[in-house]
Amino acid sequence: MAKGKKIKLGAMIHGVGGGWEDWKHPDAITDASTNFQFYKHQAQTAEAGKFDFAFIADSVHITEKSSPHYLNRFEPLTILSALAAVTKRIGLVATVTVSYSEPFTVARQFASLDLISKGRAGWNVVTSWLSGSANNYSKDEHPPHEKRYRIAQEHVDVVKGLWDSWEDDAFTRNKETGQFFDPAKLHTLNHKGEFFSVQGPLNIARSKQGQPVIFQAGTSEDGRNFASKNADAIFVGHENIEEAKTYYADIKRRAASFGRNPDDVSILPGIRPIIGRTEEEAERKYLETVNLVSIDKAIIALGRPFNDFDFSVYPLDEPFPDLGDLGANSQQGGSAKIKRLAKEHNLTLRQVALRFATPKGNFVGTPEKIADTIQQWVEEGASDGFIIGVGIPGALQDFVELVVPILQERGLYRTEYEHDTLRGHLGLEVPVNRNSKAKVLNS
Amino acid sequence: MAKGKKIKLGAMIHGVGGGWEDWKHPDAITDASTNFQFYKHQAQTAEAGKFDFAFIADSVHITEKSSPHYLNRFEPLTILSALAAVTKRIGLVATVTVSYSEPFTVARQFASLDLISKGRAGWNVVTSWLSGSANNYSKDEHPPHEKRYRIAQEHVDVVKGLWDSWEDDAFTRNKETGQFFDPAKLHTLNHKGEFFSVQGPLNIARSKQGQPVIFQAGTSEDGRNFASKNADAIFVGHENIEEAKTYYADIKRRAASFGRNPDDVSILPGIRPIIGRTEEEAERKYLETVNLVSIDKAIIALGRPFNDFDFSVYPLDEPFPDLGDLGANSQQGGSAKIKRLAKEHNLTLRQVALRFATPKGNFVGTPEKIADTIQQWVEEGASDGFIIGVGIPGALQDFVELVVPILQERGLYRTEYEHDTLRGHLGLEVPVNRNSKAKVLNS
Repeated sequence: MAKGKKIKLGAMIHGVGGGWEDWKHPDAITDASTNFQFYKHQAQTAEAGKFDFAFIADSVHITEKSSPHYLNRFEPLTILSALAAVTKRIGLVATVTVSYSEPFTVARQFASLDLISKGRAGWNVVTSWLSGSANNYSKDEHPPHEKRYRIAQEHVDVVKGLWDSWEDDAFTRNKETGQFFDPAKLHTLNHKGEFFSVQGPLNIARSKQGQPVIFQAGTSEDGRNFASKNADAIFVGHENIEEAKTYYADIKRRAASFGRNPDDVSILPGIRPIIGRTEEEAERKYLETVNLVSIDKAIIALGRPFNDFDFSVYPLDEPFPDLGDLGANSQQGGSAKIKRLAKEHNLTLRQVALRFATPKGNFVGTPEKIADTIQQWVEEGASDGFIIGVGIPGALQDFVELVVPILQERGLYRTEYEHDTLRGHLGLEVPVNRNSKAKVLNS
Repeated sequence: MAKGKKIKLGAMIHGVGGGWEDWKHPDAITDASTNFQFYKHQAQTAEAGKFDFAFIADSVHITEKSSPHYLNRFEPLTILSALAAVTKRIGLVATVTVSYSEPFTVARQFASLDLISKGRAGWNVVTSWLSGSANNYSKDEHPPHEKRYRIAQEHVDVVKGLWDSWEDDAFTRNKETGQFFDPAKLHTLNHKGEFFSVQGPLNIARSKQGQPVIFQAGTSEDGRNFASKNADAIFVGHENIEEAKTYYADIKRRAASFGRNPDDVSILPGIRPIIGRTEEEAERKYLETVNLVSIDKAIIALGRPFNDFDFSVYPLDEPFPDLGDLGANSQQGGSAKIKRLAKEHNLTLRQVALRFATPKGNFVGTPEKIADTIQQWVEEGASDGFIIGVGIPGALQDFVELVVPILQERGLYRTEYEHDTLRGHLGLEVPVNRNSKAKVLNS
């Protein structure tokens, strides 16, 4: 993290939790994924903790084998619009796939969320890795990995182009002269590309933050390039600080190679802190989550990044099977990492599955220990902050009440919001409208 | 209206108003279309008036010639999700086109709004009449009128099928047994039709009202059939009570011919009441709105139902031109009506344009007079209630404060909400899940 910058924090709100059997925890609210009060409480808790943003994950395909938290949950743009009405400062980041959406609708719904929230919207751009998604969208085939990223680039370019349809001072709204807007400040995109033809203009103006913030979560080669080129913030998962540092340096380097200021790309690993007043309490809480998971469920969960591959055909206690190319066209980065770790540590299928189902992570312990680890990660160039995943019920509340004050005392984290837009929280400039900029350059 | 039933009332919330130059009114809030406080105030006003629902209109294509209220406004599903968080009882009806949307996403976003609002969502199904819409959605052509209604039927069938993916008691969420849901109560749609292939299941469950309520606004032959077959409520515009009665009888007859109980289809003309404490005050308020509109703007507005046809090429003070088939493939019902009225009353182009731009309607006068007209319309079989269009600033507030109490005194309108779902307000049963029903029939 750059010197003098504060840590960024996001809260993933995830209903019954991000783990396969989190819902079985004694304190879990089992209908949380469609319980507005739960979401409202989580968002307001994160806002009380001065978090930069709340984050909603997504996917567009389920089967009866999917994890409980995928089966029945709010759609991101609608739930975040509702949360916009009951929060004031916190950013609101929605995951929406580019593989199964129309740029005009995506641009419009995010712009609308951005105006409802007065400049707090963010878009987590995903390409969808589950091939079954195609079957829900009248498509013959799920696009291959490399093509998905080409679609993503064009989709994002179109959306950003549409967002600049109206210059910021386009709406004169002068009752005396009868001029509602200045036609010279309305711009038609006229995009015709490989995947999309979108004329525009968009029927909604920019918010005070200019454009919604772009999030991404790329770990494959295509994903890293896409993220370094396009993302304002990157959501990523890491096994340990070494891996995180390598990734961090790689992304910052790539961002610079695209002509960007590396400080404008926040790298935010997702973590699932487990906080105890003592080390023993934290360990006990961790074991509670481990014990919730059966090996059967862990085997199914492991299949997900491999496009719901059925691992149950392999023996549990023999070395992790050789899978060849499997996973390369679904969650390429994630599946490759699982294969690599299995090989490096010579793990059995059972060990890989259990480790994947209930990762302990590096953030289990007392509030002080967790604050220390956070400080270490940001000071040693492993991250610019974190996205707090909600595993154990009450973990977010614990984090806000116990860890945040320590980070604030150490001067690492804000004690009050300095801004009221997501872009402001993340230290990003309001982007000049491309059409206003073009005029300045041409004059 | 059926004996003993109460009047239904909806409030269209429309930012700077439904008329071309409403924004120029001295009391108009000129940024109302993207002002969340304005929408919140209108929705809460309608809820204080015990309205059945708030209604958001929409379109997906603008040009620099579009009316101010189309140019820059909230997207319906996002703004209604935000309003869900700040209201408790009122229904929330969003307009979404079937011509430029994916059934899976539409089903999901409405289901999400329905769960956020605890059973208050409604979908106003439109087919989009502006051919330019195709250019915003990578389509070669805007589908012709008849085809749009075939698409609409299949789209709505798929959405309703997806909404029934989960039976109401599918989620057992039993921590002891470890069963989160009963797989026998999860249903895959496997739809393969002319326009859509959608496998399902949907990744969200039904709300307490079962499914969102279906609204429609058909006046053409195709539109009337579609509405009578599918809609729970119909939004329509009428010149006078005679026309309204004919339409009312026609729709109820068609609904019966589709095997439906005609009482289950509420017919709700849109009206723009202008309320004065005296007749003179009301007339003065009406003239204020007329004087806002220039003939140039009126001519452009008139072009809209004819797919933004340019009427300025015709002389203003000669008989309305013979347009042949023009309009048949855009807003078929609306454009045909304009042509018919011009002919019947032998109007000039100027007269047609001004009449279209600032229709006086039948609801201008004192609160008593407006209550009388409302009572007459519902008692004589011209409507089951009304959608109050917001033309003059403060009109909704006036209606709630001055007209609603009279209707309540006369026993025509509720004094308290009897239900907390939109379906409940409209007197509709919760539809049995098609998959549960199939089981009962087969057992």
